[in-house]
Amino acid sequence: MTPLSTVAASASASASTSTPVDLMHHLSTEARLRKPNPMKAIWKLTQRKPNMVSLANGDPHYSLYPIRNIHYEMASVAEEDPVASWRAGPSAPSQTLTSSVHEPRALPLQAGMQYTAGAGLPLAQRVVTDLTNFYHAPADHLCTLTLGNSDGITKCFRLLGEPGDTFLADEFTFSSVTNVPLAQGIKWVGVKMDDGGMIPSELERVLAAWDPARGRRPHVIYLVPCGQNPTGSTLSLARRQAIYALAQRFDLIIIEDDPYYFLQYDSPDCATTAPSTPFARSFLSLDTDGRVVRVDSFSKIMAPGMRLGWVTSSAAFHDALVAYTDSSTMHPHGFGQMLIAEMLAPGAGATGGWQLAGFDRWVRSLRAEYHRRRAHFLSLFAREVAPSALASASCPEAGMFVWVRVHVERHPRLRADVRVRGGEGAAKGPRTNVRELMEELFERCLDGGLVIMPASIFALAADPKWDDVEDPVEDRVNYLRATFAGTEEAMEEGLTILGQVLREFFAEEPKAVV
Amino acid sequence: MTPLSTVAASASASASTSTPVDLMHHLSTEARLRKPNPMKAIWKLTQRKPNMVSLANGDPHYSLYPIRNIHYEMASVAEEDPVASWRAGPSAPSQTLTSSVHEPRALPLQAGMQYTAGAGLPLAQRVVTDLTNFYHAPADHLCTLTLGNSDGITKCFRLLGEPGDTFLADEFTFSSVTNVPLAQGIKWVGVKMDDGGMIPSELERVLAAWDPARGRRPHVIYLVPCGQNPTGSTLSLARRQAIYALAQRFDLIIIEDDPYYFLQYDSPDCATTAPSTPFARSFLSLDTDGRVVRVDSFSKIMAPGMRLGWVTSSAAFHDALVAYTDSSTMHPHGFGQMLIAEMLAPGAGATGGWQLAGFDRWVRSLRAEYHRRRAHFLSLFAREVAPSALASASCPEAGMFVWVRVHVERHPRLRADVRVRGGEGAAKGPRTNVRELMEELFERCLDGGLVIMPASIFALAADPKWDDVEDPVEDRVNYLRATFAGTEEAMEEGLTILGQVLREFFAEEPKAVV
Repeated sequence: MTPLSTVAASASASASTSTPVDLMHHLSTEARLRKPNPMKAIWKLTQRKPNMVSLANGDPHYSLYPIRNIHYEMASVAEEDPVASWRAGPSAPSQTLTSSVHEPRALPLQAGMQYTAGAGLPLAQRVVTDLTNFYHAPADHLCTLTLGNSDGITKCFRLLGEPGDTFLADEFTFSSVTNVPLAQGIKWVGVKMDDGGMIPSELERVLAAWDPARGRRPHVIYLVPCGQNPTGSTLSLARRQAIYALAQRFDLIIIEDDPYYFLQYDSPDCATTAPSTPFARSFLSLDTDGRVVRVDSFSKIMAPGMRLGWVTSSAAFHDALVAYTDSSTMHPHGFGQMLIAEMLAPGAGATGGWQLAGFDRWVRSLRAEYHRRRAHFLSLFAREVAPSALASASCPEAGMFVWVRVHVERHPRLRADVRVRGGEGAAKGPRTNVRELMEELFERCLDGGLVIMPASIFALAADPKWDDVEDPVEDRVNYLRATFAGTEEAMEEGLTILGQVLREFFAEEPKAVV
Repeated sequence: MTPLSTVAASASASASTSTPVDLMHHLSTEARLRKPNPMKAIWKLTQRKPNMVSLANGDPHYSLYPIRNIHYEMASVAEEDPVASWRAGPSAPSQTLTSSVHEPRALPLQAGMQYTAGAGLPLAQRVVTDLTNFYHAPADHLCTLTLGNSDGITKCFRLLGEPGDTFLADEFTFSSVTNVPLAQGIKWVGVKMDDGGMIPSELERVLAAWDPARGRRPHVIYLVPCGQNPTGSTLSLARRQAIYALAQRFDLIIIEDDPYYFLQYDSPDCATTAPSTPFARSFLSLDTDGRVVRVDSFSKIMAPGMRLGWVTSSAAFHDALVAYTDSSTMHPHGFGQMLIAEMLAPGAGATGGWQLAGFDRWVRSLRAEYHRRRAHFLSLFAREVAPSALASASCPEAGMFVWVRVHVERHPRLRADVRVRGGEGAAKGPRTNVRELMEELFERCLDGGLVIMPASIFALAADPKWDDVEDPVEDRVNYLRATFAGTEEAMEEGLTILGQVLREFFAEEPKAVV
């Protein structure tokens, strides 16, 4: 298929799908002002009759690409536990995928390395669509390739956010994400969480009590439903349904960022046997209105350097996303598109491809691997940290992170009535010196040779003018984010240091539990 | 090198370079509001002492990447004319580059496929820096990797442009580029051109006569100095120097978009022997103030699907660009970074790499190939189109495009005094029906089976309130953009159709030349 026809094919495919509910009012002014690429309109004209001759293109002919074959040597998914086999090293069995100019393949290299539509090459789009249908079976949605998770999310912010808007998220959220729209003039309001993630009644409280003096009521919520970063929490189906119902009632768009979807383990009993539970139902799978925009990525299940992912959304949002992509990054690189096409295309098994069944085996094997790592982390934690009763670890149902609660209430220098901020009228700001103590602990960990993420960098800064002055997030930063994605040695050494630093830090004059 | 140390190394490298002239006032509000990624600050702390243990990261361990080797089968640059040899087909000699987890290589796969800094992996940055120094020898500049030319340019627009700003460009400019910032609320003013590209005195006229009632005087100019798209024009050194002097006088930032830099041919005598002239001096090479932001790409010299390029700029602009990249797309994919590292790293010859000398041989061979194509196009034009004297072709000194002037003054239905726009007070808008006749010609080409780009889609829409009412760009759209980047067959068939369609279109009742 030529690049010209791919454009037209993609455009007509999207035009044929309708949005169940009209949600176009959520698009930003910028997104509504955006003009389609005029070249694409010209290219469509090349379809007027067969065998049109083109003097219109500005792209090199493929015979001038200095690459004719790319061979990707991949893990074999013929093994029963492919991840465990693969970790054996250079002798582990492999499968080789090839992109080629001259040999017949699912996606010829000359098509993969050409300019194409913002949504991606049709076959690359198709394989992620098949994958999405297999795991989520969404109604009336389309997949758009992205240049990775960060690209996908930040494009969503740009398509939905207006300067002055307020977005919603968990009160502890990955700050590399939440910092982004600040530059656009968008603020955040954090919603309170517990071990099970965002609390739906807290979300309702924020929305129902919204003071119009703060500006437009939030119309976008950003969520990581599985193995949330940084807390490791996973939303139950009941919470997902409750949040979706609130999204309908208050007309929210849900950005579902789900990079840890495939790393879901058994329920919180933290059994050490391989997980066998089915994957949780995503917001996408619950979406009847087209108000969920789901962001997927290959970073955690393959490699971050893939810089390839996809967004699944209503047709209307897909169109806006493609127009924005055509006017910014353009489509993702051919290397990754060719790789996923050869890896996942139906029938690609004959030329080394995994196909969807092999992919499913890989991700299930991968979650078994992380499940083992989680168990290893928790057993080390039980040995090195827990006995002091100075910190406790949650057992995450998904993802890579353990949210370690530091029992700061036992620290001799904890002060419980500190008001350091505000000053006009009623006292505002944190009541305690938890943040200062945690900063001190973080410094002591560094001095001890350990880097571990402090909760404070994930806390959505409370606005003292509007936020709950009785229970500000600054008083709840007594957590550390630890990972079990690293090596066993790093876990062993890191948790040994953590246990020792905690004991020294609390040793000054232990206090009774409050 | 670990991803953590790459971040710190990149940050300290940029801090050590100073901007010759303080141009920070050109940055947009958004760029100035942008917060650095807080994770990066934490990562820097990992440098506090050697052998820090990290429980802080959120990235999979490389032993879990399902890829262990990637082999890129590339053209051999041992040949005297490597492009001509390569076009021979599957039997042409090749060199194989390999990215590998287990074998020693310039850039190990586990580093290439990891998260890294927005500027790119240090070695990938270094090879494009060496390349830039080799061809341009800029003073005090840094290279930042991009996800291709479009990503680089659109990021520049976002970093420099404020809603309400007016940017400058050639009056005919690639509309996929000029449409982009319209959504941000940025307007364009086109500067008049002739066969030699933008006319410096016209640029001066626009700036010197700027009416403050139009808003802020333009502070950004977008230029394609070699083989400009769509006109194929190339700026002489004298014009470049004059434009640079105006940029200094009027405090402009120059965005130098130069994808056709390596496709520079002999001067306009259009000799058919291989070009031997040195490459023209870029704006970057003239830049003493740090006001040139140069955008380079691998799309035209390797393949568009590479989606990899780089921006060369002052250290201050580099820092803003890296911060924006970290907050949007993130760094480019590992596939391309590994490919250029293995291809260009000094000493990579032992493992199949081209190195810089081989790259230079490739691009010189490539320009000889396009030079042959240009000669072929022009000889076909001379045979099929020129004899009717209804159109003439410029001989481009660079790039892929021929700007075909249609002698619309000979058309029987040309009307020379049509005022279709405006209406209050003095007559405004086009004086002629050139646009309508050209639209008709474009339709007739399509009916004849030929797609060719009409000048009108590249014309920066004149604002009748402000633009030159005596000579609006709409009266000068009697051009077609044709490419010689396609196959010889496409040129042969396309120009035959064009000649025929022109003869029929003008045949109604030929007019004497005005």
